[in-house]
Amino acid sequence: MTVVKSTLPDPDRDITGEALQGTLVDLLGLSLIAKQAHWNIVGPRFRSVHLQLDEVVDTARAYADTVAERAAALGVTPDGRPETIAAAFTLPSPKDGWLRDSDVVRLMVETLEAAIGRLRARIAATDRPDPVSQDLLISLTAELEKQRWMFAAEDWPNES
Amino acid sequence: MTVVKSTLPDPDRDITGEALQGTLVDLLGLSLIAKQAHWNIVGPRFRSVHLQLDEVVDTARAYADTVAERAAALGVTPDGRPETIAAAFTLPSPKDGWLRDSDVVRLMVETLEAAIGRLRARIAATDRPDPVSQDLLISLTAELEKQRWMFAAEDWPNES
Amino acid sequence: MTVVKSTLPDPDRDITGEALQGTLVDLLGLSLIAKQAHWNIVGPRFRSVHLQLDEVVDTARAYADTVAERAAALGVTPDGRPETIAAAFTLPSPKDGWLRDSDVVRLMVETLEAAIGRLRARIAATDRPDPVSQDLLISLTAELEKQRWMFAAEDWPNES
Amino acid sequence: MTVVKSTLPDPDRDITGEALQGTLVDLLGLSLIAKQAHWNIVGPRFRSVHLQLDEVVDTARAYADTVAERAAALGVTPDGRPETIAAAFTLPSPKDGWLRDSDVVRLMVETLEAAIGRLRARIAATDRPDPVSQDLLISLTAELEKQRWMFAAEDWPNES
Amino acid sequence: MTVVKSTLPDPDRDITGEALQGTLVDLLGLSLIAKQAHWNIVGPRFRSVHLQLDEVVDTARAYADTVAERAAALGVTPDGRPETIAAAFTLPSPKDGWLRDSDVVRLMVETLEAAIGRLRARIAATDRPDPVSQDLLISLTAELEKQRWMFAAEDWPNES
Amino acid sequence: MTVVKSTLPDPDRDITGEALQGTLVDLLGLSLIAKQAHWNIVGPRFRSVHLQLDEVVDTARAYADTVAERAAALGVTPDGRPETIAAAFTLPSPKDGWLRDSDVVRLMVETLEAAIGRLRARIAATDRPDPVSQDLLISLTAELEKQRWMFAAEDWPNES
Amino acid sequence: MTVVKSTLPDPDRDITGEALQGTLVDLLGLSLIAKQAHWNIVGPRFRSVHLQLDEVVDTARAYADTVAERAAALGVTPDGRPETIAAAFTLPSPKDGWLRDSDVVRLMVETLEAAIGRLRARIAATDRPDPVSQDLLISLTAELEKQRWMFAAEDWPNES
Amino acid sequence: MTVVKSTLPDPDRDITGEALQGTLVDLLGLSLIAKQAHWNIVGPRFRSVHLQLDEVVDTARAYADTVAERAAALGVTPDGRPETIAAAFTLPSPKDGWLRDSDVVRLMVETLEAAIGRLRARIAATDRPDPVSQDLLISLTAELEKQRWMFAAEDWPNES
Amino acid sequence: MTVVKSTLPDPDRDITGEALQGTLVDLLGLSLIAKQAHWNIVGPRFRSVHLQLDEVVDTARAYADTVAERAAALGVTPDGRPETIAAAFTLPSPKDGWLRDSDVVRLMVETLEAAIGRLRARIAATDRPDPVSQDLLISLTAELEKQRWMFAAEDWPNES
Amino acid sequence: MTVVKSTLPDPDRDITGEALQGTLVDLLGLSLIAKQAHWNIVGPRFRSVHLQLDEVVDTARAYADTVAERAAALGVTPDGRPETIAAAFTLPSPKDGWLRDSDVVRLMVETLEAAIGRLRARIAATDRPDPVSQDLLISLTAELEKQRWMFAAEDWPNES
Amino acid sequence: MTVVKSTLPDPDRDITGEALQGTLVDLLGLSLIAKQAHWNIVGPRFRSVHLQLDEVVDTARAYADTVAERAAALGVTPDGRPETIAAAFTLPSPKDGWLRDSDVVRLMVETLEAAIGRLRARIAATDRPDPVSQDLLISLTAELEKQRWMFAAEDWPNES
Amino acid sequence: MTVVKSTLPDPDRDITGEALQGTLVDLLGLSLIAKQAHWNIVGPRFRSVHLQLDEVVDTARAYADTVAERAAALGVTPDGRPETIAAAFTLPSPKDGWLRDSDVVRLMVETLEAAIGRLRARIAATDRPDPVSQDLLISLTAELEKQRWMFAAEDWPNES
Repeated sequence: MTVVKSTLPDPDRDITGEALQGTLVDLLGLSLIAKQAHWNIVGPRFRSVHLQLDEVVDTARAYADTVAERAAALGVTPDGRPETIAAAFTLPSPKDGWLRDSDVVRLMVETLEAAIGRLRARIAATDRPDPVSQDLLISLTAELEKQRWMFAAEDWPNES
Repeated sequence: MTVVKSTLPDPDRDITGEALQGTLVDLLGLSLIAKQAHWNIVGPRFRSVHLQLDEVVDTARAYADTVAERAAALGVTPDGRPETIAAAFTLPSPKDGWLRDSDVVRLMVETLEAAIGRLRARIAATDRPDPVSQDLLISLTAELEKQRWMFAAEDWPNES
Repeated sequence: MTVVKSTLPDPDRDITGEALQGTLVDLLGLSLIAKQAHWNIVGPRFRSVHLQLDEVVDTARAYADTVAERAAALGVTPDGRPETIAAAFTLPSPKDGWLRDSDVVRLMVETLEAAIGRLRARIAATDRPDPVSQDLLISLTAELEKQRWMFAAEDWPNES
Repeated sequence: MTVVKSTLPDPDRDITGEALQGTLVDLLGLSLIAKQAHWNIVGPRFRSVHLQLDEVVDTARAYADTVAERAAALGVTPDGRPETIAAAFTLPSPKDGWLRDSDVVRLMVETLEAAIGRLRARIAATDRPDPVSQDLLISLTAELEKQRWMFAAEDWPNES
Repeated sequence: MTVVKSTLPDPDRDITGEALQGTLVDLLGLSLIAKQAHWNIVGPRFRSVHLQLDEVVDTARAYADTVAERAAALGVTPDGRPETIAAAFTLPSPKDGWLRDSDVVRLMVETLEAAIGRLRARIAATDRPDPVSQDLLISLTAELEKQRWMFAAEDWPNES
Repeated sequence: MTVVKSTLPDPDRDITGEALQGTLVDLLGLSLIAKQAHWNIVGPRFRSVHLQLDEVVDTARAYADTVAERAAALGVTPDGRPETIAAAFTLPSPKDGWLRDSDVVRLMVETLEAAIGRLRARIAATDRPDPVSQDLLISLTAELEKQRWMFAAEDWPNES
Repeated sequence: MTVVKSTLPDPDRDITGEALQGTLVDLLGLSLIAKQAHWNIVGPRFRSVHLQLDEVVDTARAYADTVAERAAALGVTPDGRPETIAAAFTLPSPKDGWLRDSDVVRLMVETLEAAIGRLRARIAATDRPDPVSQDLLISLTAELEKQRWMFAAEDWPNES
Repeated sequence: MTVVKSTLPDPDRDITGEALQGTLVDLLGLSLIAKQAHWNIVGPRFRSVHLQLDEVVDTARAYADTVAERAAALGVTPDGRPETIAAAFTLPSPKDGWLRDSDVVRLMVETLEAAIGRLRARIAATDRPDPVSQDLLISLTAELEKQRWMFAAEDWPNES
Repeated sequence: MTVVKSTLPDPDRDITGEALQGTLVDLLGLSLIAKQAHWNIVGPRFRSVHLQLDEVVDTARAYADTVAERAAALGVTPDGRPETIAAAFTLPSPKDGWLRDSDVVRLMVETLEAAIGRLRARIAATDRPDPVSQDLLISLTAELEKQRWMFAAEDWPNES
Repeated sequence: MTVVKSTLPDPDRDITGEALQGTLVDLLGLSLIAKQAHWNIVGPRFRSVHLQLDEVVDTARAYADTVAERAAALGVTPDGRPETIAAAFTLPSPKDGWLRDSDVVRLMVETLEAAIGRLRARIAATDRPDPVSQDLLISLTAELEKQRWMFAAEDWPNES
Repeated sequence: MTVVKSTLPDPDRDITGEALQGTLVDLLGLSLIAKQAHWNIVGPRFRSVHLQLDEVVDTARAYADTVAERAAALGVTPDGRPETIAAAFTLPSPKDGWLRDSDVVRLMVETLEAAIGRLRARIAATDRPDPVSQDLLISLTAELEKQRWMFAAEDWPNES
Repeated sequence: MTVVKSTLPDPDRDITGEALQGTLVDLLGLSLIAKQAHWNIVGPRFRSVHLQLDEVVDTARAYADTVAERAAALGVTPDGRPETIAAAFTLPSPKDGWLRDSDVVRLMVETLEAAIGRLRARIAATDRPDPVSQDLLISLTAELEKQRWMFAAEDWPNES
């Protein structure tokens, strides 16, 4: 059943659709694990990092929606169902149970760094096939790089 | 590592914690599949149901947060990671690809109905162990029953 | 024509539906007579009571909507048509024409007191059949008892 | 007990008062039956018409308040009590129970059309006695004619 | 120096200009004396009437601006300077010093009644020359008649 | 295909429909040429007039919508397509290219004056057939006469 | 009739009361003449100065209210009636009819300068009797000096 | 002097009144000591805990108001005067002078834990006498348990 | 008369200016025909599509303004006058009179598809001459492709 | 433990700190007794005074916070604990139980008058040591004198 | 001390970091000189240009923050200290003292033109090394080119 | 070129102008170095201090504007150009590169303390020449002393 015709030729649509579907999984997974840390974090920096994680969640949710609707707009059906995320999500994730605040900060640096690396590759891949989708990936990268910096600046021992 | 002491005796905490963890999985799964339908729906009622599904998403996300923080407040660590949801989520879900609007409406009636049945049982189970958590489950049930009614009222063929 | 299936077994649905329909009539009638007093009140306290009555109207209208939609959500069709209200509404009501402010205050104490008495009975009746509807009746009672107190505190002669 | 002196001579006040009281009953009745339909509507257009009906309710309530206060301002006591509405309201009304969406749309076209016909006559009747009240009736008619058009534009079978 | 050309023929412009200038003086004077009462009122109803008077001030100021700009739009220069108001303002006014609340209420009934009488005459006078200005005078009259009613409804002795 | 029945008898509907359609073309044309001047204006008063022109655009767009929906509400289909506007729009318009600020001010005085003259005639024409539409034309005229005054007050050489 | 007891000894109250009453008249007069200029101004700077004058009006009205209530709070009845303003207001004022923009700017510089001179004297006079009222006069002076600067900066011929 | 009649029978009113009065004292005391800590806290976590304490204050003040008005609504006069609080408040409190941030966090865990224990008992006590007041105590407990968790999650030494 | 110097070399300015002028005509024409459909649409989906069309209008108007100001910023005078639009607008357009809802949906798919095709070409053309203008065309394309998808998803027969 | 160094020399800091601590106790006590009256007031003026008392509470709470933080900013630890208030608060206070409205009004006049007298002394005392703190006390006095006037204006028997 | 690791390879990071640091200095300098002109401007266009300059300041401050945080996000420390700006800022700047309005307009055209020229070079330089930073420079250029146009359109003698 | 006449005699204007110009440089410098720290801070307290520094920036920018416009209002041209700030700013400043959070906190205590010392001297100097400017310096000092306290309270080692 082909419903929404693409405004791109088929090969371009396929490359772009793959980039968007991969980004969708990364963002939905990121929104879930940032919430997981938001709920389970403990330690003296609890409140500050607890609030900061919700900014990651807000970014991830908002861009997941935009990315999925962008795929649909190109005639590619996005897939964000639980089993799809569980199968395809590969970014560093938290363990079960309470999480120490310094571990959460370090985890977020690593997770965001991995997500950014994958986005940089997708920006290169979509440059010719669809500059419109590329522009969306660029603005998402700017946002995640900003959040990575903030966690990295925090990932720092107390004065000894 | 026991971090946050519970304000409930252990057996009450265990019953309540189980009810909350089960609800958390249902709500996170619901938020993902309602978004999936929001993106993939097609048919003459697209716009109306597309908007309606985001109200389900908003409800599911807001209550998931409250339910998870309620668990943490009782000293029980909530688990909302992708693999946990994929493993534990059992409500009726959409198939891959475009979804006809009337199928989405029918699916939402079934999914919400299943979720409500499970909540009714948890309301009964938590009545004595923790009336505070029970009150939260009651208000969530009221909200989901309202949304189920709206989809059910829509699940109706055109005049012939 | 049975359209919206109930999430309650039939006997529980019938008890709860009766409690909600009775409350709906009380609230719609209350909204009408509080407006009647809002328009026809005279006396030195006109402005203060005129404004206070609109708070009763706002409460009555908002809860009437919630109560009616709760009935529908349980598969019970609410009835708020003019002839139904006129036939079923039994709370103390104002006479025709201008109304002295002190009479309005006393009337509102009596009307709200009667409404509260009926709600207390419905809270008891719905306790087992549907704690979700009961919770709605409890919060409505809290609101009406607050408004009753305010009129009662005002129902007081000038210093002699 | 004559309390608020009129700024109009008696015959003008009587004509205008009658026009306003008749309009008040139409508007309060309209607000009740539009809510009745808002709660009991079923069919594939449920959500769209459910929301549209609340715009009718908002209009009817806001103008009922203005019309009743206009009567009081002219020294004429408005009467909007349940028994008065039930006795005097004559516009087409819904039956008890669930209401099919297409029937609701057709009913609203008829009800609004009847209300508009009565308002057109009152605009003519108040032209000389009180242009201030006439101006209010004119702006109400503009609003109801707009809402009638919207229901009429919707009252249309699916493509065959 | 004729600067802004009128869109009305000269005789119509003169009649309309006179109606607007008279209204401007009434409104500016009304705004000043309502503020005077707002500041000097004493008595048990101080707070309620103090607030109510600011609604008169807001109405008077907003309409004074609209009326003056309407005159300018017709090529007639409005005059609202202190000496003009003092010379031309003839509505009932408060005495110097503290003002008892019941006296203020009665004064406002009289002042508004006098203003309304003059407006009714101007509505008749502008009917043919300029229905656009007439429409403005009609809406102002509706507003002042509403405020007159509120003070009249309050002008009422305590129960004996 | 006659779809929306009129609430007016046919001759009244025709007169009123013609007045509304003519007004619609004037307003849509006005919104386009005011934007044209907003973009192309140069001169020391650029910023002030640039902002002022957007108030003309806002007025013209808002009333165009109201006027067109009023026509539809009377069963008359409004026509605001590009070719219709180009064919029927006759108000004074700007030339191509940059526009000196003083020329823009003078043009707006002329364009608004022409539009007002046509509206005054339509107010007279609709007085009997439809006082509801007339009331809309009256309030539009008030708004355009205010804007004309502001441009006229500005159309004035510097001191020499 | 002494109603509100002063918190100041009588001589301090008299000095302060006189300073406040004088300021009240200046501010009410200023609000009236700034509106007069707002309505009657013509010239190429119409729109800019028209808007700027309303900032003077807003300041004058807001401080008039604060100053009058400050007097009442000290047991001194403020007097802002039309005849009082006309008799006591001595600041430079506009002539009747249209006002050229450059003349308005120059007038506002002069009027504000005169008002500021009188305020500076009152700041000195109230320093010992009532530092609370003095603080109010200081903040009013800051505001009027800012507005005087803005008109003075504008009072400047075009380049020749 | 019995002024406001209770809607509860006397024994139920007494039990409920006692629960509400005890809660009122706890909340007013809590609002005062949380402010005390808000002002006197020092240490590297100053800003984070300073802000967090104001959320405790907001909760305590809002619920104190609701609880006291609930008592009045039941005909029981609440007592929140300084001497009553000082005499009846028994929750753990801060010492005089500067307070180290880690001590504040630990104190808030203890104070909130003590308050919650008392609330749990009152929830049990009011279950039968007044489910309406019980519902209020339940929602307050949910809120305080959430805040206790946040302080407990923070009460954690730095990494060594 | 060359007024605003370009920041681009002449050949780049010409290519970019042509792309912007073409886009301006498309957007102004689109805003007019989407409004035309907004007013004349009939059928059971009236309300949903009527609202959706106003989102097209909002997008078209906002981008038309940005695009025209971008042209002016590059020293190219934009032309959006009625006759220019009528002459240059070539996208699929509605016929006169009432429009069936399903026809409107199909028309919008076609019109947006045509507009997008032209934008894709302009994105390619401006890549080298002006990446700043290209970025604007990219974000406009993203928005129009999203709206095209929504209409396409709706363009779907009822279940048979 | 001296933590926050003062920007004032020690003697000035001591005088200022004492003035601020005394003010803090007055304001916290005032906030508690105004709330006490807010809850327990009865009589025909209940609603008006009930609302007015919350303005006293808002003022007292906002200034208490500012005053306490001002003390901390000067290196002086503020003390607002329950036992400190109970021991040091000496302003006139309400009795236990229901309070007649006229008694509340008279009590507030006396309490505010006493508070103002103490503030006037502190304004004098801090003039030289710290004009910054003095400025805060001056603005607080202005606010309390305004509220005292409003209660005094209300403290007035009905007409006999 | 290398703290925040870059997501770019070193040579790309260096090129991009240089472009961002240069832009930061230009924006901070621009924000300071636009404020300087905002304060010192005189002439008949004072108010209009005074307001317009604050839009330049807002743009410059907002982008300076984004640009500096973008540098930090890439592991490059931004430098915006006073001595750095003074040493590195080279755009055309105002002289000391009062500034004639026409001179300010001309200065802003030149300053913005110089800033844009430097940005165009940085857009070219960052195209390959970091399309994410390039996208930020592109959107800044669009904004500054719009503001340059507005000043250029104003830079125009009066009619002679 | 003397443009704006002063409302102060020359010697008073000179003293006040010097105090304001010195304050302007301190505030602009403070805004720049607080932003520098906002961007370059690292360490576990990154997020908390990063946010806190923006409150310093907001205060500094808002008061810089008020202080500079106050100078202009007194006929003294303020100077806030980059080279002036660089030459005249003498408060303690951060080094280049990343900044440890505890160093930033200590630096802000020192910088604010130095700024406050200079402000205290200016408060004394302007007492007689211009109490209006003095009042502005007093309120600025209150704000900076509050921010100094907050950093000082944070400047505290972890528990050992």
